[in-house]
Amino acid sequence: MNALQMLQKINAMAEFNRWCGIEVTVADPGSVEIQMPWRPEVGQYAGFLHAGLIGTLIDTACGFAAGTVAGPNLLAANFSVNCLRPAQGQKFIARARVVKPGKTQIFTSCDLFAVDAGEEKLVANGQTLLTVVQAAQ
Amino acid sequence: MNALQMLQKINAMAEFNRWCGIEVTVADPGSVEIQMPWRPEVGQYAGFLHAGLIGTLIDTACGFAAGTVAGPNLLAANFSVNCLRPAQGQKFIARARVVKPGKTQIFTSCDLFAVDAGEEKLVANGQTLLTVVQAAQ
Amino acid sequence: MNALQMLQKINAMAEFNRWCGIEVTVADPGSVEIQMPWRPEVGQYAGFLHAGLIGTLIDTACGFAAGTVAGPNLLAANFSVNCLRPAQGQKFIARARVVKPGKTQIFTSCDLFAVDAGEEKLVANGQTLLTVVQAAQ
Amino acid sequence: MNALQMLQKINAMAEFNRWCGIEVTVADPGSVEIQMPWRPEVGQYAGFLHAGLIGTLIDTACGFAAGTVAGPNLLAANFSVNCLRPAQGQKFIARARVVKPGKTQIFTSCDLFAVDAGEEKLVANGQTLLTVVQAAQ
Repeated sequence: MNALQMLQKINAMAEFNRWCGIEVTVADPGSVEIQMPWRPEVGQYAGFLHAGLIGTLIDTACGFAAGTVAGPNLLAANFSVNCLRPAQGQKFIARARVVKPGKTQIFTSCDLFAVDAGEEKLVANGQTLLTVVQAAQ
Repeated sequence: MNALQMLQKINAMAEFNRWCGIEVTVADPGSVEIQMPWRPEVGQYAGFLHAGLIGTLIDTACGFAAGTVAGPNLLAANFSVNCLRPAQGQKFIARARVVKPGKTQIFTSCDLFAVDAGEEKLVANGQTLLTVVQAAQ
Repeated sequence: MNALQMLQKINAMAEFNRWCGIEVTVADPGSVEIQMPWRPEVGQYAGFLHAGLIGTLIDTACGFAAGTVAGPNLLAANFSVNCLRPAQGQKFIARARVVKPGKTQIFTSCDLFAVDAGEEKLVANGQTLLTVVQAAQ
Repeated sequence: MNALQMLQKINAMAEFNRWCGIEVTVADPGSVEIQMPWRPEVGQYAGFLHAGLIGTLIDTACGFAAGTVAGPNLLAANFSVNCLRPAQGQKFIARARVVKPGKTQIFTSCDLFAVDAGEEKLVANGQTLLTVVQAAQ
């Protein structure tokens, strides 16, 4: 099972990821891409993508990027999100990468793009600090 | 219409908040409480509350707290979330407060509790920096 | 050697803390207070306390608070600072506390006050996530 | 006066920047580089660069990058720092860029490198959210 298959399997195990319609589309050592389609249920009061789902995509992509270097036993300790522009589009693409891998913690970073009429626009960015969970803990 | 009614109305306008089952339970000047029940669809791969929904509750409660002092024309610029413990429970309560109101930006803070067998446990905290959107913009 | 004495000893070992004139004034299990006097050398271009020194005080107080529960072998992984108001005063007091201690990481929080004409004003707040460094690492 | 000269002038007005020995070495529209030499006074208890000075360099470089697109009337609202590796070297180089300029707020990002024996190593990264201060405020 390669990295992409491992992440697709983990993605399928998370009920909320399935509800969101998140798909893992790219997985290389240290970087991933995930996608999610727009639908009205993911909107905030003005009809843009809800900030909670912006965070969901950034946190999920960062966790998967970390997973390509450290395996699946990871927990997010902190994540931070910048909402740069109103997030509007037919679909959303999050691209995350590992900034610094470590034995106990992994620093990651992510850009989130809205795709509207075939054009990508950076709408948010963020970061996640993940902790490697020991089997014995 | 008092602050609680205004926030309940805004909450009802956000499709994602409705899907989550978020309810606004308390609204005072500068502070609010919101609640969300557990159900399997909000889980991550290990069955805990998904970090994206932890972020959703913190960002939503912070935005509503800011709304009690600045009205509804607000956008989250940055939010940051600490996942302190695995988030498990029958329901989740987010309590947010305004740390510093301003003309153009509002600093807020939030604690998230899981309620399990009637007992509250702090599972996450976070903060949101909101920008006041000008009508003329 | 009690917690206050341990922290005062560590504080004296850090050359930059000595230059700043930082003093550890209170140390209880899970919480500390430190102080720093104003002088022109700590100013930014407009004569307020430089944001870098706001960060210094918050990071230092958070690290010391963590030290009261986990000993001195700690490194800051991430810290985040909100500049709430221009930081002006004769001295500055940072009060930090442990939000969640853990085996491998410790979450902390801090408020920073400027003291002007005997009155305390909240000028910044922030948080630090510290990692426990293993002796064997 | 070009952007580099404007930033060098602002840098010289900040007493703490002068004490640090910070120099502005590059300024292009939306990006800057600053440098600071190591000396013992900037150390923490183990002799690495103090986290407060890591924050100082990141916050200062981000503010200068924002200044190249928005002029000097800016205040940092929030900054966040990741300490990736122990910061050790003869000098330190911070490179910052504007991620998203706006009318009222500017999102920036920064990488911090330690230079040891002529080799650059990424030791920290971070971000700053700056607010444009209105002349009339």
